[in-house]
Parts: sequence; C-alpha cells; structure tokens
Amino acid sequence: MSQAAARPPLRVAMVGYAFMGRAHSQGWRGAPRFFDLPSEPVMQVLVGRSADRARAAADTLGWAEVETDWRRVLERDDIDLVDICTPGSTHAEIATAALAAGKHVLVEKPMANTLAEAEAMAAAADRAAAGGTMAMVGFTYRRVPAIALARDLVAEGRIGKVRQVRCQYLQDWLADDGAPLSWRTDKAKAGSGALGDIGAHIVDLTHFITGQRVAGVSGRLDTLVAERPVAESFSGLSGRGGSERGPVTVDDVAMFTGELTGGAPAIFEATRFAWGRKNAMRIEVNGSEGSLAFDFEDMNVLSLYDAREDARTGGFRRIIVTEPDHPYVGSWWPAGHGLGYEHGFVHQAVDLVRALSAGEQPTPSFADGLAVQRVLDAVERSAGNRSVYTEIPAHRPAPATGSTGAVGDEVPAPAGQSRGA
Amino acid sequence: MSQAAARPPLRVAMVGYAFMGRAHSQGWRGAPRFFDLPSEPVMQVLVGRSADRARAAADTLGWAEVETDWRRVLERDDIDLVDICTPGSTHAEIATAALAAGKHVLVEKPMANTLAEAEAMAAAADRAAAGGTMAMVGFTYRRVPAIALARDLVAEGRIGKVRQVRCQYLQDWLADDGAPLSWRTDKAKAGSGALGDIGAHIVDLTHFITGQRVAGVSGRLDTLVAERPVAESFSGLSGRGGSERGPVTVDDVAMFTGELTGGAPAIFEATRFAWGRKNAMRIEVNGSEGSLAFDFEDMNVLSLYDAREDARTGGFRRIIVTEPDHPYVGSWWPAGHGLGYEHGFVHQAVDLVRALSAGEQPTPSFADGLAVQRVLDAVERSAGNRSVYTEIPAHRPAPATGSTGAVGDEVPAPAGQSRGA
Amino acid sequence: MSQAAARPPLRVAMVGYAFMGRAHSQGWRGAPRFFDLPSEPVMQVLVGRSADRARAAADTLGWAEVETDWRRVLERDDIDLVDICTPGSTHAEIATAALAAGKHVLVEKPMANTLAEAEAMAAAADRAAAGGTMAMVGFTYRRVPAIALARDLVAEGRIGKVRQVRCQYLQDWLADDGAPLSWRTDKAKAGSGALGDIGAHIVDLTHFITGQRVAGVSGRLDTLVAERPVAESFSGLSGRGGSERGPVTVDDVAMFTGELTGGAPAIFEATRFAWGRKNAMRIEVNGSEGSLAFDFEDMNVLSLYDAREDARTGGFRRIIVTEPDHPYVGSWWPAGHGLGYEHGFVHQAVDLVRALSAGEQPTPSFADGLAVQRVLDAVERSAGNRSVYTEIPAHRPAPATGSTGAVGDEVPAPAGQSRGA
Amino acid sequence: MSQAAARPPLRVAMVGYAFMGRAHSQGWRGAPRFFDLPSEPVMQVLVGRSADRARAAADTLGWAEVETDWRRVLERDDIDLVDICTPGSTHAEIATAALAAGKHVLVEKPMANTLAEAEAMAAAADRAAAGGTMAMVGFTYRRVPAIALARDLVAEGRIGKVRQVRCQYLQDWLADDGAPLSWRTDKAKAGSGALGDIGAHIVDLTHFITGQRVAGVSGRLDTLVAERPVAESFSGLSGRGGSERGPVTVDDVAMFTGELTGGAPAIFEATRFAWGRKNAMRIEVNGSEGSLAFDFEDMNVLSLYDAREDARTGGFRRIIVTEPDHPYVGSWWPAGHGLGYEHGFVHQAVDLVRALSAGEQPTPSFADGLAVQRVLDAVERSAGNRSVYTEIPAHRPAPATGSTGAVGDEVPAPAGQSRGA
Repeated sequence: MSQAAARPPLRVAMVGYAFMGRAHSQGWRGAPRFFDLPSEPVMQVLVGRSADRARAAADTLGWAEVETDWRRVLERDDIDLVDICTPGSTHAEIATAALAAGKHVLVEKPMANTLAEAEAMAAAADRAAAGGTMAMVGFTYRRVPAIALARDLVAEGRIGKVRQVRCQYLQDWLADDGAPLSWRTDKAKAGSGALGDIGAHIVDLTHFITGQRVAGVSGRLDTLVAERPVAESFSGLSGRGGSERGPVTVDDVAMFTGELTGGAPAIFEATRFAWGRKNAMRIEVNGSEGSLAFDFEDMNVLSLYDAREDARTGGFRRIIVTEPDHPYVGSWWPAGHGLGYEHGFVHQAVDLVRALSAGEQPTPSFADGLAVQRVLDAVERSAGNRSVYTEIPAHRPAPATGSTGAVGDEVPAPAGQSRGA
Repeated sequence: MSQAAARPPLRVAMVGYAFMGRAHSQGWRGAPRFFDLPSEPVMQVLVGRSADRARAAADTLGWAEVETDWRRVLERDDIDLVDICTPGSTHAEIATAALAAGKHVLVEKPMANTLAEAEAMAAAADRAAAGGTMAMVGFTYRRVPAIALARDLVAEGRIGKVRQVRCQYLQDWLADDGAPLSWRTDKAKAGSGALGDIGAHIVDLTHFITGQRVAGVSGRLDTLVAERPVAESFSGLSGRGGSERGPVTVDDVAMFTGELTGGAPAIFEATRFAWGRKNAMRIEVNGSEGSLAFDFEDMNVLSLYDAREDARTGGFRRIIVTEPDHPYVGSWWPAGHGLGYEHGFVHQAVDLVRALSAGEQPTPSFADGLAVQRVLDAVERSAGNRSVYTEIPAHRPAPATGSTGAVGDEVPAPAGQSRGA
Repeated sequence: MSQAAARPPLRVAMVGYAFMGRAHSQGWRGAPRFFDLPSEPVMQVLVGRSADRARAAADTLGWAEVETDWRRVLERDDIDLVDICTPGSTHAEIATAALAAGKHVLVEKPMANTLAEAEAMAAAADRAAAGGTMAMVGFTYRRVPAIALARDLVAEGRIGKVRQVRCQYLQDWLADDGAPLSWRTDKAKAGSGALGDIGAHIVDLTHFITGQRVAGVSGRLDTLVAERPVAESFSGLSGRGGSERGPVTVDDVAMFTGELTGGAPAIFEATRFAWGRKNAMRIEVNGSEGSLAFDFEDMNVLSLYDAREDARTGGFRRIIVTEPDHPYVGSWWPAGHGLGYEHGFVHQAVDLVRALSAGEQPTPSFADGLAVQRVLDAVERSAGNRSVYTEIPAHRPAPATGSTGAVGDEVPAPAGQSRGA
Repeated sequence: MSQAAARPPLRVAMVGYAFMGRAHSQGWRGAPRFFDLPSEPVMQVLVGRSADRARAAADTLGWAEVETDWRRVLERDDIDLVDICTPGSTHAEIATAALAAGKHVLVEKPMANTLAEAEAMAAAADRAAAGGTMAMVGFTYRRVPAIALARDLVAEGRIGKVRQVRCQYLQDWLADDGAPLSWRTDKAKAGSGALGDIGAHIVDLTHFITGQRVAGVSGRLDTLVAERPVAESFSGLSGRGGSERGPVTVDDVAMFTGELTGGAPAIFEATRFAWGRKNAMRIEVNGSEGSLAFDFEDMNVLSLYDAREDARTGGFRRIIVTEPDHPYVGSWWPAGHGLGYEHGFVHQAVDLVRALSAGEQPTPSFADGLAVQRVLDAVERSAGNRSVYTEIPAHRPAPATGSTGAVGDEVPAPAGQSRGA
C-alpha cells in the first residue's frame, strides 16, 4: 500500500476557480509531491455556479467532482476543509457558515470588504477554534522564502530593533487611460481599489516581518482617471476602441504614513499607475543593527545589510534565497534553482495541513486578517478627513515596560512554520 | 465525460527518479493543468532498480506503477514514450533500444558521455523518425520564457546580424576544498566535469538562440583541487571531517573560445569555483543592431539594447518576461507573477506532446544533442593539445554565398514551438 | 594674450570653507577648464572668521586673498559675486546685504532656516533683479546630468502627463545610537533635521523635474533616538565611549504625502536611519506615457520606461548618461566615463556665469528656494497638527482651464540651461 | 607665506593635450587641492607641435608656458618631470630621452606599441632609477578606489588564495558599421586594436589585484568589420554618408585564456562591438574563501562574497566605496558622494608626487608596463598560430616550494600606496 494511502485524507472543497482558484489548485496538487505531509490533501469538489463551466474547470485543474451551490458541500460529511476563492464580498457569508458547519476554512485575501464583516469573521473563527475547527486567511506572500527568511532574521535580532519600515506595491495595469472598467474598479464589488487589493499585502507583510501592528495612520486616496471605457467583457487592456464610458469608484493610488506598535514610523504606497512596474511589492525594514530589503520583481533574493560589519567591507548582501537552509527551499531543487509565484500556494497548503494535523492554529489567522482590515479602514477614514492621523486603538498594546528613549523595543517571537522538509 | 478523458492518452514510462526524475514528473503533471494539449500525458510507470525505493518515489511523484527493469517497459503495449533520467553513461543503450522498440524517447542532457555514443544515438533517431518514432533531448533551459524570447528576437532580426557571443555558467558548489568526491567528480561516471555538466547548456543555448553552430574551438580545462575527501555517502557538502582522500578526475573549470558558423567569435566559461554565483548561466549576444543579455539568477528578465534608439535615451531594457505575449507565459498567471526553475520542464512536456500529436520532430533533436557533443569533444581535444584551434568540420556549412565583409550573415529561421496557449 | 585674459573676469568672494566651501571651490576652479565661458571666474577672496585658518584654507582651495569679515567684501569694488557657504542661520543676513550692495549672490541650500527669512530673501532678490543684480540658490543636484535629462524628457512630453511622484532620500549616518550630537542635531543651528537637510533636495527636484509645485502636504516627523553622546568635537561617528548625553532637537525622519499643482499625488521620505543606504536620493515620476527613475547611488544612470513600446519588448531602460548628447556631458570625457558628485558644482558655476553674462535670471532663483521652504514649513505645521492636510496657497495656480478628468495637465516648459559646450 | 609656497615645487612638462592630456591636467590641478602633498606640482610647460593650438590648450587646461619641441624641455633646468600623453608610437623615444636627461617620467598607457620598445624602456628606467630618476606608466584604473580596495582585500587574504580570474572590457563605439576609420583602427599608429587599447587595462588590473602575472595565453583576434568609411576628419561616429572606404588593420575583438603564475586559470575579452556596453571594464576574482567583482559602469561599487559567512545569510555585498576608510576617499567628500572617471588621475598624481618625494619607485613601474606588453605580445603570437598556448617565460617564477595540490599559493604583498589623506 502506498504511503499516500497510508496518510489520513484531508478532503477539500474549493469555491471559485478564477485566478486564485487556479493558484490554490496548484498549491493543493504540489504540496504532497515535494513535502512530507501528515495527511493527504484530496481535491474532492469544485464549486461553481455554472455546472458546465465548473466541470470544465475541474477537469483542467484536477478536482474530482463539482457542485453548483457552496451550501451543499457544508452538508457533506466527506469534506474537511472549504477553500474560498470567490470575490471578497462573499467571503464573510461562506466562511462563517462553513465554520459553523465544522469545516476548516481557508479564505483568500482580502478577508472581507468591510471592517464589520471582518470582525464578525474573526469572532466566528474564535468560536470555531474552541471546538477545534480552524480558519486561515491567504496572505500567501508570507510563504515566499525570501520573506519568510526576512521574518526569521528580524525575530532572531539580526537587524536589532525595528526602527523604520517603508513599503511600496507598484503595478501599472491601469496606467493606460484606455484600460476598461472591471469589477476591480467597482467599489460595490471590490470594496476598494489599490488599497485593499495590493495595499493589504504590504500591511500584512509589515505585521508578519516585524511582529508588530500598525498603530495609527495618516492616509490619502486618489483616483487619477475618473472615467474609463465600458468593456463588453474585461479581457485585457485592449479595449481602447469603445465609446461608452463609466465611473471608476475606487482608488487608483493609496498612500499612508503611520507608526508601528513599537513606535517605528512606517510609510506605504500602493498604486496601479507606475508604468513599467509589473509587480514591485517592496518592503525595507531598517533596524538598529542593520536593514532588510525585498522586491517581488526579484523574488528569490533578500538583501541584508549588517551594521556590525567593518565599514570598509560592509554593504547590502544579495542573498539568493535558494539554499537548502532557507525556508521551504530544501524540499524543492538544488541550490540556485529559483522558485516562482505559485510556490507560495504550495507552501500555504503545506503549512495549513501541518497545523491542522497538529491541532494548532494556522497563520495568518482571521485575527491577523482583521488586523489588516483595521488598518485599511483607518486609512479610508483618515483619507476622508483631510488625512488627519487616525489611531487604531485595538492595536495599541498595554503600556510597554521600561524606557530606553529609542524606537523598537518590541521584537517578534521566533517564527514557527516556515521550514520545509 | 471529462475533456481529459476525451483526449487520447500519451502513456509515459520514466527511468530514474533523482533530481531530474522529480523535475520531469513535475513537468508531466503540470502540462495539462495549464496548457491545452492535444493528448493527455499519463504518468504510467516509474522504473527503478530497487522495487521498494521505486514504489516510494512513485507515490511521492505521482506515478501509477513501478518496474525494476527498463527493458520490461519496452515490451509493454501500453507505453508510448520513455523518459530517460538516468546518469549519462546509460543513455545510449536505453534510448537506442527504446527507439528500436517504437517508443518515443525523451532523454535528459547530456545526451551521452562520448561522441561515439551520441553519433550512434543520432543515427538511431534518424532511423526511428522515418517510421514516425521521435526522439528529443532535454536541454530544458530553451524553455525558459526569457530565453525563448531571446531566440525569437534574434530570429526576427531585432538585433541584426549576430556579431559576438559571450557565455558564462558560474556555480560554486565545489569551491569549498572540503566538498567531497561524488559521481560528478568521477570521469568514468560523469564523462567530464563542468564542461559537460554546465558547459553543455551554454553551448546548446548558443546554438538555439543564434540559429548557428559553434564551428571550432580553442579550449583549456583545469582541475583546481586535485584531491577531495571520500564521503561515506555523498550527502551535501558537509564532509569536511573525513581523512581519506581521493582524486578528482574531471575538470573544475572549462574555458574556450571559438567562432560560430556565421563567423562571430564566441567565448565560454563553465566553472564550479565561482564563490557566490549559485546558478549564473549567462549569455549575451551582440548583433549589428543591438544586444541581448540573460542571467539565470534573474530568470524572469531579458535585457535588450536596441541600437536604433536615439543615443540620448538608449539603454539596456530590463524586460520582465511575464507578459501574456511572452513565450509560454500566457498560460500561467497575470503579468508580473514570475515563474521558477521547474516551469521549463512543464514547457518541455507541452512542446513534446504537441510535436508528437502533430507528427513533427520535437526539438532539440538528437541531432541537436550531437552538435553539442561535438563541441564538447573538440574542447577536450584542444585542451589536450596545447589549446590549439580545433575545427568541427561537421558544423561547417557549405560555402556561404556573397560577401559583405562583415560577420553575421547567417540568421535563424523564426522559432516554431515557443508559444503558450 | 591668452583667451582667459581676453574674457572679462567674474570676481568671486566665498564666505565659509567647510564641506560646501570645498565643493564650491572645485566648481569655480573647474568651470573654465572644461566649458567655454563668456567670463572668467576669479577666486579672489575667501572669508573666514579666523585669519589663520582662512589663510590655510585659501592656500589649499586656491583663493588669492582672505578676509575675516564678510561685510568687508561688500565694500570692495573688485568683487562681483558673493558665494555663501556658511550655516543656514546666517544666509538671510549675508545674502540680503550682499544684494543691497550690488553683488550677485549664490547661496548654498537650505536657503534659510525659517520661512520668514526665505520670504525676505526672495523679496530682496526681486528688488535686486530689477537693477540687474542676480541671486541664485545652490540646489546643485539639478545639475547632475541624469537629473537634467529627466527634466528635459518630462518637458518634451516623453512620459506624457505627470501622474505620480515618489521620492526617498535615505542615509544612515545617524543610525548608530552612539553617533554623537552635532550642529546638525541642534534645531537652533540647523532649523530642522532630515527634513531641511535632505528632504529639501527631493522637494526641489520634484519642482525642477515636473515643472510643478507641491500644493499641499500631510506630514509626520520622528526623532528615533532622543539623546546622544556629547562629543568633545564632532569628528566622525566613533564617539561611542562618552558618558555625557544631550537631547536631539531635530527630526531623524520626515515623511509626507501631498499633491502637485497639476493634481498628481506625491510621496516623500527623508531619513538618516536607513542602515546601508549611503546617499540614496531617489525620485521616480510616473507619467501617462511612461516613467523615469533615478537613484543618486547610481548617479550616472537614468531609468526610462516608455509605455509606447511594444509590451513584448518594453522595460525600464538603463540609460548610462555619459553620451555627448546628454546635458553637460559633452564638455567632459568620451562616452562611458562617468562623473562624480562634485561635477554638479562645476555645472552650477557654468550655468551661473552664463546667466550673469547674458543678464538673465539664473535658476534655481530665490523664488524657487522660497517654494521649497514653503513646503518644508507646511510639513512641519502638518506634523505638529496630527498630520492634517495643509494647503500651500501660494503654490495654487489660477483655476486650470478645461477638464479632462485626468491628473497631469500641467507640463513644464522646455529646459534652458542644461547643455554643455 | 602660504603652505603651497613652503613646499618644494615639482615642475611638470606635459607632452600632448588631447583626451589624456586633459585628464592628466585635471590630475595635476586637483592633487594639491584635496591631498596633503610633500611637494607642489607646478603645471609649467605644455608641449605641442602647433604653437597656436598648444597656447590655446594651455590656457584652457591651465599650463603656464608652451613649447613646440619636446626636446627643448629636456634641456631646461626648471623641469623636474615629463608627462607623456602622445600616441603610443612616440612613447619610447620621448621617455628614454627624458630619463637620460634626468627627468622623471610619467607615460600614459600603452607604454609602447611593440615589445622591443617596451623592453628598451624598462631597461632605461632601470638605469635611471639607479641615479634616482623615476619612471611610471599610467594605468590609472589602479587608482579607482574600488579597485584599490579589491587589491588590498586580496593582499589581506580576505578571499583566500586566488583560484580564478575573469575579465571583460566591453565597449560599443565601433559596433556601428558606419563608424569611420581613425588612428585607432590603423595598426601603424595604434599598434593593435581592442587588445592594446582596452585589453591592456584588464591585464594590468589582473596583475595589480592578484599580485601575480599572466604566465601563458591562448588567444584569438577578430576584425568583424573589415572596411570602414574614410572620414575627412575623425569627429564622432556620424560619418555614415561617405562613399570612400578603407581597411581596418587592427582587431575589433580580442579573446584569450591563460593562467596566472600561481596557477589560477584566467579568461579575458576586450571588444568594441558590445552594443549598449559603454565602458564595462569588469574583473571578477574567485578565491578559496570568497570572491570580488567590479564593473566600471558602477565604478563606486565593489562586490564581495565572503565564503566564511553562514550560507543562510551569505551573498555578494554591494560595498559602496565612498567611506572615509576606503582608499583615497577620505580626502574627498563625506560618505556616499561618489567619485568619477577623472579622480583616478588625481590619485595618480598624488601617488607619484609622494613616491618621488620619498625617493621611492612609483608604481606601476616600467617593469609593470613591460609585463603587460609581454602578455599582449603573447596573445598576438598565439592568435597568429592557431591559438596555440604560448608561454611567457619571463613571468615564470622560480619553482614554488611545497605543494598543496591546490591552485593559488601565491599571495600579493600588502598594498603600499593606496591610502588618501
């Protein structure tokens, strides 16, 4: 009998099969091929509203069955986990119901479109966790090896206390005035624009890497092109010809400053208008003893400056994060053979399966997702109120002890789930 | 009935399951998930000498059955293709037998350990092709999107005539004197060292991108550390402690100069001693109207200099090769989401399946593999004869017509198989 | 008779001889050696409070005479221009008096320590200009060839309308907690910290490159290390040993967001705490048709993304700004031979001499200096008022005509003074 | 009395005033302004064949007098040093005569056009040195701070034993077929093409940085465009229109492999056909404990890989060579303010003045220049003889003692003259 058969199954139902559904499928498929897992993910059911299209997607993506109503899978005994890849406006309803039905939940980011939804989801997750049912939100970039390494190095004190954070998430897919409207430019469907879509990632990474929360913000949101062509269908950026136009109701650019719970100032920008930047998710953390920098356009590299070095030979090191000792990497290829975007989804599946088998809370939890939502909400409120500084009281810790007069006393605990093998 | 079931199957038997076997498995598995294929690859049989270990590998990698003798699969009617991932010294025998048995063959590079073997294999492939049985060699780097784009741009004349080529393949895994002996340092098993292992790749890429052959070489081979520790088992590079030492019988560094069939001078270096270079496979082609440059350490990028630009704003462009129009990329993720090392193996499977379904010769053919082998052989002969320039007569074309007095008249035909779907 | 002698002299008195005095001296000395000037700068008098030290500096730097009171040089008939390189707190008094005495003035940045001083200086410059006496402020980075090229390309419409600006000025010389107090950490002497010292540069460059002004800001200022050692003398960053400590009274980090007069949002950060960043003055401008990016750590390079390119071969171009057609460069060395930090001071001298000879207003004018000061002042007021958005009414143009619904209608006029000879 | 006046003068006569004459003038002018020198260089006489043009050049460049015959300055008592910036074919005669006349000599590279001339010059220098008259050759790139740092780090053992060297010098100014003939494409005047013009630099840097000599080579030389337009005057690359054409009699591309006296293999390429590479002089040294890499297109940076680092955080460090502790840098600007091409000429003047005042042999000596010439000569002979390996017996040391079986036993002595202040 094969080893796979010897492992208990983890039977998954996935709701939605667009971009994120394809990425999650690749994650479930790859996890047991490269990592030694305590249970075997089974791609059991794909849920889509149209049976025909769901069937075709299931064939392509490798799911055994299809359903057309997500409520049906909650009633089935042979489903252990619901993986939610639908638009954000549906997350709260499905996730809450699934948890209530005793199904573990993985929900793609953004966790919700509103703060109220996110709070309800976090509360539901707390209730479910008490009974051993777990919820996780899919901030997959945490599983890029270079980012996991950054977090480990901060936790180990390699750059000392966190002094400053600067983040950018630069894309250019709306920089063309002729790019048509889509659900992503519609506030009713998307909740917000660059802020929630990509700004959410850099807020979560700041939380993840530093082990701290954003404690308050001053923000501004801009919509640079107020009207766009109405596309018959949103199919790429080629719809220059159309004559009908409609309003863009979300932000094109989000900018905010603030500080972390440990006092470090932080600056953030998310934009869809930076011509030439395809997916430049960048984060730099300056500590009291060094710096770390990452850019997703060079995703297998982490830059480290160690201030303890002799000034004569110090400099940012370009760490190629493909060594066996690097997070997740040892399970893949020999040194020097880089990973791609989708590998984060495999690592997400691995970490989730392992946490569930161990009866532990997977991360990022719904509480982590709620923390991001609180920051986005504060940015929106600040932007609507002349950028006035807006506290996030829920993120303020109890008064810190001692006083060194210097920023950065709060240091994260060592990372737990980022090793491969 | 599912689409997959509606497609005719292509039943594969894979021989060997180490590094390359894992990569090929990932290729077969991923191809039908992301590309629209005319037939459905079926991972039918894994062949390994130990039944137990083969069974465990088959479970992990996703193969249905196992065999312990590769000759058995040649006798089976339900196998269409034999995928050979064993050490190079076994390639000739297995490939020749498989072709004779009417099985299509994919053989991992290096095609063979000697020129004589390669010649025999190419002859066998010619005979088989006459009957519709096809052979292909796995120079997978041809399927990195940035490299396929480079080849297309050369073929389109974007950089004019090819004037010069410079290649490096820099690694550092033997730079540590304490790294132990392995089959890769043993001439009997590996054939050669850096020359055949990684030098072969840059020779093939030169052939592929320029559409020309290396016509002659002057070479040198060096073994920088003549003795190394004997490892009880070769398990990483940590065996500094051992006291027994043995000889390294292959080259650590290979350097050669030469020219292409169109007259362009070319320079090559392959080394395992470049501390800090993890997998720096680099190729730069200078043409009469521009230049192209690639480095595998930044594998989603191709650099292009277009000499037709205004000198005031000209400069190497950093093309992020993740746009839908780029080779293979449109089948994966939205723009800006990079691929990794293993995606080349998916593309290899895709191109092979398509060629077989169309009854066409897949590339690189055994003739292409033989061409690389001829260059490696000439380098070895030159290195053994005081670096004297050594012609490769088989690569010399019939006399070119006309005479412009300038290097680079030979331009490759447009690429055929590098688009996704 | 020599050509130099045939040119009318421009006799200069320089006040101050520290870092900036050395740089200005190099500028005056080099200008006539590489550029064809209409008049000949004469390094006539160096002014310093201590006669001995001024004499030693004059010998080293190449000035003919010394004075110990700047008022003396205003009385001399043989001085045409006063070059002010003293600390910012003295600029207003000296510059105003020199202009009143009919001397042209070059004042190093920051133009003044307070907005009131800057306003008085700008008014004095207006009065003087009516009589043909000119004033200029030394934002020398405008004369880095790559930056002058950026400005020209924006003015020519190469990147279309300005849509967004992002700026960083990252240094690390205070990142060490043990770095001692200096005049730069003392608000009474320096006016502000990172904001005025380096933030001023990125504000001026934004004005220069875009041809627009910052129209309003939301800012925050942080002092990360509140107390530092008292150094007996400020001599490098080695004073870890001292036990006496005193307060830092300026900002270590300045962050602000805002928008330009044409509506484009902009984001700025200036810090002295970014370990590993030595002089990373960065500016990126995203337009409707492309992007430009610059980093002073790679000062001979400008990056350009042209959105009109085919998506398949588009990418940021690394323009090496050392071609004869590039601003200022033709007067120096053959293509490919980069310039350094100090060359901006030569170019400044060249542009100033030419403007004076032509009877034209040199740029940046005191009005330009005042514009920067207004932005810094608004940042400080916003930072003191919970980051609330703070308008800069003086920068608001009359209502723009028409309405395209898109940001970026305001385009700068073509550059005037940036070519070499 | 001024300090300058208190220092003894070093009175210089410079022969030639084209590109190199301008660069040397900038060196002599700048040296005493930034460095504390034991004697004061005096720019006394400029020698040129045309009195009018020499006078104009002297005015622009800052020389006091002119002469039209270099022999005249050898007769003058008030000249201490002759600085030779004429074409290479004249170097031997002028240098030999100047040394015989008791004048110190600085001669621009290439030291000579032939090996015989170089040998005669080295012999003359030996004779002169015995009497205290010194000769130096102007391989100025040795004085780029990043390169001087590289040499110091090798000498200190930071990268262990030298295992491999790879060098490229890539330019593109002849890549355009329409670029006209010039003295640089004429063997009679230039001696060779890319080999002697830029290949000489990478050979000298290899000698300098490793402390070893090239011991033998296998080379090839190619002329890619055999005929070019005859320009009425060689004035840039714009002469596409001309119809008359003439032959190119020098190499466009030089490629050679070889090994150092310590046994390390080395690979070299010099080309004028690499479109987009403006002045990419690159050298990488791999040692037993790390690597160093430099590219002149990023001249203020040295990359260092330290193999002693933890593999998890190791990576090439981008050392920004602008710190006070770096060679020469402390005399210029604060940290982070980069230098340019011409600063090497200032450093050359500084090191030469100091060596002469101390009565020491300045470096690179004529013996060092001869060593480069021997390598170039061997490359030409090898290229003319089917690339056969060609020993350079003069560079072979006496048999090394001991035997470790590993390449790289020879380590350079610590550097002497590379510090500023």
